[in-house]
Amino acid sequence: MTLRADPRGPNLHVGEDVKIADGVEFGANAVVHDGCSIGAGTVVGDNAVLGKRPALGGQSTARRDPLPGLTVGEGCTISTGAIVFAGSSLADRVIVGDLAVVRERVTIGADSVVGRGATVENDTRIGARVRIQAEAYVTAYCELEDDVFIAPCVVTTNDNFMGRTERRRELMKGAVVRRGARIGGAAILLPGVEIGEDAFVGAGAIVLRDVPPRTVVVGQPARVLRDVPADELLDA
Amino acid sequence: MTLRADPRGPNLHVGEDVKIADGVEFGANAVVHDGCSIGAGTVVGDNAVLGKRPALGGQSTARRDPLPGLTVGEGCTISTGAIVFAGSSLADRVIVGDLAVVRERVTIGADSVVGRGATVENDTRIGARVRIQAEAYVTAYCELEDDVFIAPCVVTTNDNFMGRTERRRELMKGAVVRRGARIGGAAILLPGVEIGEDAFVGAGAIVLRDVPPRTVVVGQPARVLRDVPADELLDA
Amino acid sequence: MTLRADPRGPNLHVGEDVKIADGVEFGANAVVHDGCSIGAGTVVGDNAVLGKRPALGGQSTARRDPLPGLTVGEGCTISTGAIVFAGSSLADRVIVGDLAVVRERVTIGADSVVGRGATVENDTRIGARVRIQAEAYVTAYCELEDDVFIAPCVVTTNDNFMGRTERRRELMKGAVVRRGARIGGAAILLPGVEIGEDAFVGAGAIVLRDVPPRTVVVGQPARVLRDVPADELLDA
Repeated sequence: MTLRADPRGPNLHVGEDVKIADGVEFGANAVVHDGCSIGAGTVVGDNAVLGKRPALGGQSTARRDPLPGLTVGEGCTISTGAIVFAGSSLADRVIVGDLAVVRERVTIGADSVVGRGATVENDTRIGARVRIQAEAYVTAYCELEDDVFIAPCVVTTNDNFMGRTERRRELMKGAVVRRGARIGGAAILLPGVEIGEDAFVGAGAIVLRDVPPRTVVVGQPARVLRDVPADELLDA
Repeated sequence: MTLRADPRGPNLHVGEDVKIADGVEFGANAVVHDGCSIGAGTVVGDNAVLGKRPALGGQSTARRDPLPGLTVGEGCTISTGAIVFAGSSLADRVIVGDLAVVRERVTIGADSVVGRGATVENDTRIGARVRIQAEAYVTAYCELEDDVFIAPCVVTTNDNFMGRTERRRELMKGAVVRRGARIGGAAILLPGVEIGEDAFVGAGAIVLRDVPPRTVVVGQPARVLRDVPADELLDA
Repeated sequence: MTLRADPRGPNLHVGEDVKIADGVEFGANAVVHDGCSIGAGTVVGDNAVLGKRPALGGQSTARRDPLPGLTVGEGCTISTGAIVFAGSSLADRVIVGDLAVVRERVTIGADSVVGRGATVENDTRIGARVRIQAEAYVTAYCELEDDVFIAPCVVTTNDNFMGRTERRRELMKGAVVRRGARIGGAAILLPGVEIGEDAFVGAGAIVLRDVPPRTVVVGQPARVLRDVPADELLDA
């Protein structure tokens, strides 16, 4: 870690090879690590940390290759205490909420929001206009397509073996959430399930298998209840 | 953001029009934003951020009027890394736990506690002696009356439409938790449910409809099991 | 709080009676409180707070005796924004993840990991090689033996009375998780349950009673489904 105090913000610390566009605004105590690129008009909140490099546990299945710096687009907001890792890329106008964490090798499309305290683990792909709400947990190797809505406190999982056996490394698989699907508060998605386009998962549902497009599922385990009303479809 | 270093704390940064009473104690790296008022004897932990102004996403339903500064009463504790927004008001002896977040236009009564990592969203009203425990998620537009107990990891919801349709804006409604009610660990409250006075919701329950006063509900979905024992009532 | 700026890290603040071994590396804005001892080769991330002393609410059941300083072993990682309290002890090579909190009087064995945003409450004992994953909530007075795996967003509870009656103080009891047991994502453990050696609790299960060794339980409430496959046992 090679950090120097930088006059562009109050108690701002900056690493090497950092590109900060004109008009980036910093709160107090922000940290911008080696190799970050921050686009014009982005606002970085108090205590936010950009471009952190991972410290992996010995048992972690995350990849260990060298990472490029973090890229943050134009007009983004990295809120108070948020942490965004190296190797990730945020398109324009992305908001990362207070105390949210976005891990390495994550891509986030334009106008998406990662809510307060939410976690997006490594190697997850997030489309445009996705809303991940407060405290949601998006595990590694998930794919969230455009216009997906993840309600507060949703939990996703990716490992049926929970760290035991070597097979788990090839079978590990996060959720795939298709365009416009909505996942209700505190719902739980089991490893590798696919939530179909414009589907609706009720609050608290536990989803063990794939959910067909444009259907509503509820319950523990989740079962199909009805079709999504036409006026709630993305293209309504 | 107009922050200046301030000698009243180690690496303290303070905005404009801030009132800090005598005897307020600051940890390292605290930030006090424009318009805050902090009462005597309050302790502000390391990295705490007071009076933050919201950065709202384009789809957020939170109001956008100008906000008055945050008001913190006497003898409060704002713990390490906690974030309390502008436009909110904390009565005396409130504790906001480590890494907890309290959003804008929230009122919290005297002697209440917001636990470690808990979130209280905008426009929620919290009475006196309320205990919101660690990692609980209290959504926008909730009402928690006096002496309510919210166990760790409780989830509340307020939007049956999950961001789709315009109707949702008028139908959005958080939980109402009446005086002395207790909500068990990781229970889920659906939008707009009312939990009656001194009622008890079991751990992990999923509450789809109103819970009568002084009854115990458990299960998924929650059903009435029995009455709350007399010696556990608030006025026992 | 008596904190002084210290040249060993960028905007590092250090209290009294602190022992920092050679080769400890600090990110920006770390805080090391009175009485901490940090072993050689440990890395302390940006905004991490070590040795914090608790601020207890009036109703808290945590003990109030004076606490010794925090002890951190060799080769540990205390990640960005993490908070580890006084009175706790971390063995060698422990990783405390970003924004995780470890409370007072907790012991953690060698090579264990407390994941991002996870909480370990006071007076909990954690063995060696334990993996507590992101956002898990380990309540006070739990015991996690060696090689336990706690998946993301697991919730443990310890108080069937939720703060009411005086009896609760003697009946309060966290979970006991025996050697090698695995608890699935967002599972909920009720107060005082014992999870047997090498047992497996499915994702989203709600565990009301003890789980026998080497069995798989699933559902709400959790029921025995089958034995754990031999190749997934710890000593396989």
